[in-house]
Amino acid sequence: MSKKMDGLMQEVELTVDRIIGHAAHWHGGREIISRDADGNVTRTDYASVHRNAKRVSNALCAAGIKPGDRIATMGWNSARHLAAWYGAAGMGAVLHTLNPRLFAEQISYIAKHGGSKLLIADPSTAELVGQLLEQIPAIEQVIFFCARENMPKTSFEAIAFDNWIGDQPAEYEWGGFDEKSACGLCYTSGTTGNPKGVLYSHRSNYIHALMTLQSDALALSSRDTVLLVVPMYHANAWGVVYSAPAVGAKLVLPGQRMDGESIYNLIEEEGVTYSAAVPTVWQMLLEYMQGNDKHFTTLERVTIGGSACPESIIRAFRDDYGVDVVQGWGMTETSPLGTVSVPNASVAAKSDNEQMAYKLKQGRLLCGLEMKLVDDEGNHLPHDGKTPGRLMIKGPTIARAYFGGEGGNVLDEDGFFDTGDVSTIDSEGYMQITDRAKDVVKSGGEWISSIEIENIAMGHDAVAIAAVVGVVHPKWDERPVLLCQLKSGGRADAADIREYLEGKIAKWWMPDDIIFVDEIPIGPTGKIDKLAIRAGLKGYSLPFEVTR
Amino acid sequence: MSKKMDGLMQEVELTVDRIIGHAAHWHGGREIISRDADGNVTRTDYASVHRNAKRVSNALCAAGIKPGDRIATMGWNSARHLAAWYGAAGMGAVLHTLNPRLFAEQISYIAKHGGSKLLIADPSTAELVGQLLEQIPAIEQVIFFCARENMPKTSFEAIAFDNWIGDQPAEYEWGGFDEKSACGLCYTSGTTGNPKGVLYSHRSNYIHALMTLQSDALALSSRDTVLLVVPMYHANAWGVVYSAPAVGAKLVLPGQRMDGESIYNLIEEEGVTYSAAVPTVWQMLLEYMQGNDKHFTTLERVTIGGSACPESIIRAFRDDYGVDVVQGWGMTETSPLGTVSVPNASVAAKSDNEQMAYKLKQGRLLCGLEMKLVDDEGNHLPHDGKTPGRLMIKGPTIARAYFGGEGGNVLDEDGFFDTGDVSTIDSEGYMQITDRAKDVVKSGGEWISSIEIENIAMGHDAVAIAAVVGVVHPKWDERPVLLCQLKSGGRADAADIREYLEGKIAKWWMPDDIIFVDEIPIGPTGKIDKLAIRAGLKGYSLPFEVTR
Repeated sequence: MSKKMDGLMQEVELTVDRIIGHAAHWHGGREIISRDADGNVTRTDYASVHRNAKRVSNALCAAGIKPGDRIATMGWNSARHLAAWYGAAGMGAVLHTLNPRLFAEQISYIAKHGGSKLLIADPSTAELVGQLLEQIPAIEQVIFFCARENMPKTSFEAIAFDNWIGDQPAEYEWGGFDEKSACGLCYTSGTTGNPKGVLYSHRSNYIHALMTLQSDALALSSRDTVLLVVPMYHANAWGVVYSAPAVGAKLVLPGQRMDGESIYNLIEEEGVTYSAAVPTVWQMLLEYMQGNDKHFTTLERVTIGGSACPESIIRAFRDDYGVDVVQGWGMTETSPLGTVSVPNASVAAKSDNEQMAYKLKQGRLLCGLEMKLVDDEGNHLPHDGKTPGRLMIKGPTIARAYFGGEGGNVLDEDGFFDTGDVSTIDSEGYMQITDRAKDVVKSGGEWISSIEIENIAMGHDAVAIAAVVGVVHPKWDERPVLLCQLKSGGRADAADIREYLEGKIAKWWMPDDIIFVDEIPIGPTGKIDKLAIRAGLKGYSLPFEVTR
Repeated sequence: MSKKMDGLMQEVELTVDRIIGHAAHWHGGREIISRDADGNVTRTDYASVHRNAKRVSNALCAAGIKPGDRIATMGWNSARHLAAWYGAAGMGAVLHTLNPRLFAEQISYIAKHGGSKLLIADPSTAELVGQLLEQIPAIEQVIFFCARENMPKTSFEAIAFDNWIGDQPAEYEWGGFDEKSACGLCYTSGTTGNPKGVLYSHRSNYIHALMTLQSDALALSSRDTVLLVVPMYHANAWGVVYSAPAVGAKLVLPGQRMDGESIYNLIEEEGVTYSAAVPTVWQMLLEYMQGNDKHFTTLERVTIGGSACPESIIRAFRDDYGVDVVQGWGMTETSPLGTVSVPNASVAAKSDNEQMAYKLKQGRLLCGLEMKLVDDEGNHLPHDGKTPGRLMIKGPTIARAYFGGEGGNVLDEDGFFDTGDVSTIDSEGYMQITDRAKDVVKSGGEWISSIEIENIAMGHDAVAIAAVVGVVHPKWDERPVLLCQLKSGGRADAADIREYLEGKIAKWWMPDDIIFVDEIPIGPTGKIDKLAIRAGLKGYSLPFEVTR
């Protein structure tokens, strides 16, 4: 009878060039502060970055870059990096961010796999760039994020960013392509197999920016001054590279210096109201403030992500410094924000102490996404706050595949992406990560959280680092084994640790063995390297049979 | 060389069924309060409305409704209306909202033009429905938003909504269609020509909801209790029909009663924190509170739109009741929100009194939209806060055409929609409506704001209503003429009014004639009917020649 009918609304593509265009047009004078490695602060604004981004587009065109080509950057957060970011995206190229803190061989793999012909890097990474050039002949041109006078001495040819774009016109007709076009490429530092690339689209980045601007997410406004600690090479700096310009927030880009004093001074000097960071940086800031009797005059709130934030940090910031610490969860494959631990009405009605239990969780799902907990057979698990399950997620900001088809099909039959995380979801909808799926110990059909045992064991005075892995067991499939690295001068034996754990964990969670090692292996991203631990335990067998 | 490359993100269509699905899944128990015409309050929640919406989809299918078909509703804000809303959208039908407060012949024209075969109406509109049925034989079925026991007595066949959906299953597979599919139809009560229909898409409504959830727009959160005064038949109730469920806000739907006492009681009884309303309702609320020494215990903020909000209302709510009144601007064709008068950083730094000048403007543009001021030749005009120009707007939430092609091409060559408003934009980006384009008086190549003269004239003690229209003038093209309706007992002559205006407006803005009338004609939406005034002035000629 009646045929399908389309709406009669304007067909405007959601491309991210519109975001920096908005910032330049409506918040043109709003400042962007960059600090370089020497501590020098340079000040620019959205209008200038917008002009420079257009110069970048022209410079890329002059270099023969076409829409769809990848452009690699390896830089800290800076205004020049921001101009490169939007200049590449605006002309339809794909910005491939490299993390200079990875091992050289990882960077080399990732850079080669991404296939960029042009690399824009921070001068501080010049030596690393030299190594990459030897391994990746495909890189034809190197630009350093600096002025001519700050160029590093290199044995290879390179141009200063300011010169590279200096003569280019500040006009360029951006956009005009489909919003599903690729916009950015970011690799996950895979703990199994090779790193895999997530290829963001303009659409996914744009929708993610809108989703995260809500009051119940990052809640950025034009009145905010945002200190962007989380690096631009980590999943779009949690999208703040888009959300801050979208509202015209002042942007403070701290470069490479993450020590407590540097971060504190930047917050105070620039009147920072909001920041996004990982717990370790916030821990360093806390220690500096506590040691130097410092206080904040403008900071209101911080989103913490990347790993679970310890209660001590949340409490200290709230009670001693009047700053609200909110946890977020996400991963490269989720753009990244998936959940934010902002109170809903019923949690907000609870006491401060009761609310803390929710602040320690990774939070509530953003509207637009779907999330489910499943067992190994894909069956739905209850949202009871205690049943752990594989966390699966779906939505327009979630990856459907990896660049180059690596890893094959990563979606289940309903289109959900397997996060590789194990978590619980409570009756208020708060999700809490309990483990990585590959680290969870599967014992007698039940799941034991390696992270939970580790966190408790690390509460023992003598323990510096604790790591739990599952070891094959004939009857229970797997049983947990705890490795402990003692603090220098710390003294404890297996019986001490076992006694300490008793009553704090379920009886059947008690590790079947406790092994003391001189050094627990740590991977390049600062996390315990369980692959290395498992390799070290090859041939190891459990010392005794457990009876339950 | 390289071909176009798409991102590898999930292809999830932005269809609005996802919004109520999210609310049901993650905020299922969050309350929805509906008040009927008798003042009775019924309580339900998102999970129930979601189930009922699925029943509506099944009932529509059973009635032979297919995707793309229009479904008419003529109802006040209620949970049943909300279920019909999402039930129609979820199955791909197009909800066509009729405004029961329009003249019967207008409703008839609009209903006929929309082409619905099925009408769901409030029982209070039964008589009107009877008239419509006589004029529109295409309407095959009538349902009333009520239970069987509240059915109105009618000479035509009709079903109670609760019975209509009662036996239907609460399962229905929603979505599965393109996000550009039509989702809703809403007519503008055109002051020239026939009403014209805006055909929203799922995509435009979804993006609009995300845009308006920002801190710098409506800033709704899961902790809010929203009193939705603005009707669902007015441009998606400013999108709150989508944005409130998206975050799981408690929703209070006031039905038909808009008097100050009823609104006040609802706010206090339900703990309302936020409302969206037109100035007249807020004026009535203010008068009630002032007359009865009332105060708010929970209300924090209100978005006012539809027409400019008088300073007295903004000041009274801020200073006497601690409620922040924020103006918004938009129209049916803009989904509707285009600008919101939320302070940016530089305005926020000003004194309360200085900020008031910005609160009186219609505000700053939402990111995602483009806005420009042009003269009659389409040339860009400066953002100096004083040069008035035609306001043009562009973006994914803006109409590109009217339903059925009415009005022809409504976009300029750059794709901007002509709002028909005349406005200024200041250096901070704040837009202020100064007139409707058809009402502005074009005199000697300059534009005189009819609204500004009217507002000043209405400040005169004796003046009840003032209206300014342009009258053809041989030398200046047009000159302003002021019509005054005096208050009962008010006394003033033309010389008094002229003296009152002197010094308050530019000399060349002084009306060439001041005419006293018993009654200035008011249109069905409560605005001065300038068409009728112009018709009444046919044959009128200016009393004297002006020299400048």
